[in-house]
Amino acid sequence: MSNIRHALNVKRQDDFAKWYQEVIAAADLAEESGVRGCMVIKPWGYGIWERVQRLMDDRIKAAGIPNAYFPIFIPLANFEREADHVEGFAKEMAVVTHHRLIADGKGGLTTDPEAKLEEPLVVRPTSETIIGDAMARWVQSWRDLPMMLNQWANVVRWEMRTRMFLRTSEFLWQEGHTAHATREEALEETHRALEMYRACVEEDLAVPVIAGEKPENERFPGADETWSIEAMMQDGKALQAGTSHYLGTSFAEAAGIRYQDREGTQQLCHTTSWGTSTRLIGGVVMTHGDDDGLRVPPRIAPHQVVILPMLRDKPEDEAVLAYCEEVRASIAGQSALGEPIRVLLDKTPGKATAKRWDWVRKGAPVIIEVGPRDMENAKLAVLRRDRLWNTDNGKPAMQFVARDQFAAEVPALLEDIQDALFTEARERRDANITRGITDWHGVVNFFRKGGKYPGWVEVQWARPTGKALDDVVERLKGEKLTIRNVPRDGEPADGTCIFTGEKAAERIFVARAY
Amino acid sequence: MSNIRHALNVKRQDDFAKWYQEVIAAADLAEESGVRGCMVIKPWGYGIWERVQRLMDDRIKAAGIPNAYFPIFIPLANFEREADHVEGFAKEMAVVTHHRLIADGKGGLTTDPEAKLEEPLVVRPTSETIIGDAMARWVQSWRDLPMMLNQWANVVRWEMRTRMFLRTSEFLWQEGHTAHATREEALEETHRALEMYRACVEEDLAVPVIAGEKPENERFPGADETWSIEAMMQDGKALQAGTSHYLGTSFAEAAGIRYQDREGTQQLCHTTSWGTSTRLIGGVVMTHGDDDGLRVPPRIAPHQVVILPMLRDKPEDEAVLAYCEEVRASIAGQSALGEPIRVLLDKTPGKATAKRWDWVRKGAPVIIEVGPRDMENAKLAVLRRDRLWNTDNGKPAMQFVARDQFAAEVPALLEDIQDALFTEARERRDANITRGITDWHGVVNFFRKGGKYPGWVEVQWARPTGKALDDVVERLKGEKLTIRNVPRDGEPADGTCIFTGEKAAERIFVARAY
Repeated sequence: MSNIRHALNVKRQDDFAKWYQEVIAAADLAEESGVRGCMVIKPWGYGIWERVQRLMDDRIKAAGIPNAYFPIFIPLANFEREADHVEGFAKEMAVVTHHRLIADGKGGLTTDPEAKLEEPLVVRPTSETIIGDAMARWVQSWRDLPMMLNQWANVVRWEMRTRMFLRTSEFLWQEGHTAHATREEALEETHRALEMYRACVEEDLAVPVIAGEKPENERFPGADETWSIEAMMQDGKALQAGTSHYLGTSFAEAAGIRYQDREGTQQLCHTTSWGTSTRLIGGVVMTHGDDDGLRVPPRIAPHQVVILPMLRDKPEDEAVLAYCEEVRASIAGQSALGEPIRVLLDKTPGKATAKRWDWVRKGAPVIIEVGPRDMENAKLAVLRRDRLWNTDNGKPAMQFVARDQFAAEVPALLEDIQDALFTEARERRDANITRGITDWHGVVNFFRKGGKYPGWVEVQWARPTGKALDDVVERLKGEKLTIRNVPRDGEPADGTCIFTGEKAAERIFVARAY
Repeated sequence: MSNIRHALNVKRQDDFAKWYQEVIAAADLAEESGVRGCMVIKPWGYGIWERVQRLMDDRIKAAGIPNAYFPIFIPLANFEREADHVEGFAKEMAVVTHHRLIADGKGGLTTDPEAKLEEPLVVRPTSETIIGDAMARWVQSWRDLPMMLNQWANVVRWEMRTRMFLRTSEFLWQEGHTAHATREEALEETHRALEMYRACVEEDLAVPVIAGEKPENERFPGADETWSIEAMMQDGKALQAGTSHYLGTSFAEAAGIRYQDREGTQQLCHTTSWGTSTRLIGGVVMTHGDDDGLRVPPRIAPHQVVILPMLRDKPEDEAVLAYCEEVRASIAGQSALGEPIRVLLDKTPGKATAKRWDWVRKGAPVIIEVGPRDMENAKLAVLRRDRLWNTDNGKPAMQFVARDQFAAEVPALLEDIQDALFTEARERRDANITRGITDWHGVVNFFRKGGKYPGWVEVQWARPTGKALDDVVERLKGEKLTIRNVPRDGEPADGTCIFTGEKAAERIFVARAY
């Protein structure tokens, strides 16, 4: 395979962080904006996000949860109410203090001291407190419950070190917020959202995840329980891809979300919140990217099939374009993966070969090239992005397929690519989970000597709390390790705690993480 | 008709502003958030916005314009570059000056003086300057043109007097931004966007509009030309429902958007921008609302048909629900207005009659009630929201329709409601345009004596500029009047200028406005 000339300069195995940056640029997903920590999401990257949004939104609506919209600005007072939440969030946030600019007398602009806000406003880092205010107005009786809402919005957390899609000062997300009469119902919703995330990320993004509960030290500030889905990136690190929180009654108490029960008694609501963000795009890159760029799973590809006409500035170009348009229409008339196929006839200027490599880097699932000879033979040159290379000769594995045959097979082809990407990622993930380490020393050794991309270990622990947990967290931090979660679908514990040697309570995943 | 008991307390003819507030509340569209000038958009209001978004986005995509996303924060320097733009925008804006909060020592929080930004950041009031920065990076040669992008985003303009949907500090919108090689191409795009807005607002929102050019004094800050669509509300005031700007080369110059032409010479791009916002929802309310609440045109109704089972906490409820579910499925399986019909079986607790009035106020186009007797007779009680009252007897105009007949007719019914709402609005608009006034005195008299809701006048003017225009604007302002636009599809001028008596250059609409 050494004779393959890959489309990127950096290979995953050589420098994963640099490779990630190169894919983002080469696939035209996003770039630095010049505004600190904020990125510009370019059309191909945003197109993928729109697909993720649509698919997630369909799932949210199918659960009977409508969208709404709440203000971007949150008064300081809201953050002062819930003590744990303040601790966790009231730190690095963008704060609006003025509402007017005036000339600074030096040809520039400055804040107008006359227009200072009486109380500063925080640009939302998350919306529990402001949505809590609304729910306190809207919930009166048990008949109003459950109250379930979702919001698609931008949020801002002033990050010191940023990385595109994974950690940016501004990011886009959805945040679900629900209020329930009982703890049981709120927990049920917490788990429904978690399972919805698992299904969407695995089925739509083709990213395998492990659903489970975060340890106490990794909980959302103020939450009673935090659950997550965790994905393994190709460098073996974990990416938290979505979280679902059972907030108990503390946020309800802070905001005053109370209902009158059937007996006429005032009760506090039990609330939940859950979110996924543009971080998922980073997860798609680090799961499906290869040394030629991105590979976008068909379900979330803005264009699933791209047709490139081979034009030569000659009179026959017109016939080739007409033929391509026929091919496009015959594909667009079909459905795959439950939706009409999204097919692009790319007529932009440029050579077909150069454009082929642009689409390879962007990761369009299927690329078709059509020249005059193909037209004469009623054939298409088809390239499957997830199996790009002919390993025998180091050349792109272009298949020449009869046009009618291709039209008949394209739905199955897209389904196969979706499955193949998921299977490849799941097998790699499973191959990089190590089990059977029984003590802390073994964990330390494993990660110190496990090579560049050691993966995760599944170990057992006694679920310490308080000071004992602090101690565990310190030990992990010393090795740059974290507990990802306690798997929801894992086996029960049957051994001893790696930290204390006591009887173990449960299994946990330990890994380096983004 | 005096025996009709309308569902709202305030009638349009008595107090339009108060009526508007009541509809917003009664239709559950939005409410004040407690954060100055920012509203909460509730599920039914946001559901309408989602429909508007979807339909507008389809039109934008059909024009080959992809979505992207740019930062919410804009450095001050961007506003300092384009002098006219600064004048227009660098006034009432939210300014972020700090990135951290700390305890204030009194149990509260305050901005951390250690975390003051070197340069304040402005929360975007519009994105020409930040998108211009990106375009300057992306456009190199004529091959990169046209560069066309759209963004769905929230923007903030610190408004002193706010009114829900019409003028809020934060609002949601789409903003299109394009760069072209020539003035002609940029103007063509300016007009394409304008026409797209006209089509969407008239066909989807059923709101009739007049497309035309804004006078010089009403241009977007920094624009060479601003075009708008103007709608007449039921109080005769004008609502600017969308704008499309030809920005000339001034924004390109400020941001450095240059391209190498086919001859190898560096040229400045000609840019455009165009936007529509959640203000459109306010326009829908003031166009289609009546004394019973909102009437939502079927194309933008989150639910087009609402089925209300009449339940009595008795064993037969189950059969009624099953029957309703059959009816729901038979309707949902059909298409109307080019999309699958959106039908809701409302199973929430409460009496069917009370729920009927909730849906009347919300404006669901078709409301169906089903009781045990209807089920036995295989009938449905159908209420058409746009023809709510039987004027003979002052009762709701409920029609009892055979179930199979209704299922067959529902697509045509929805199309008819869509058309009827548009026709009603257009006829009212046309009836409230007065022509033939030939001098300023006549205009003043018309509005002073024209009653509560005088409508618009179409008059002629000489299109003054400079000081002469300032003078005209002053005279208009004195009467609380504005020039809405010079109609694109209007007749040529054939008279004299109402302001100067000179030969007129064109026709204009003069009106009070939101």
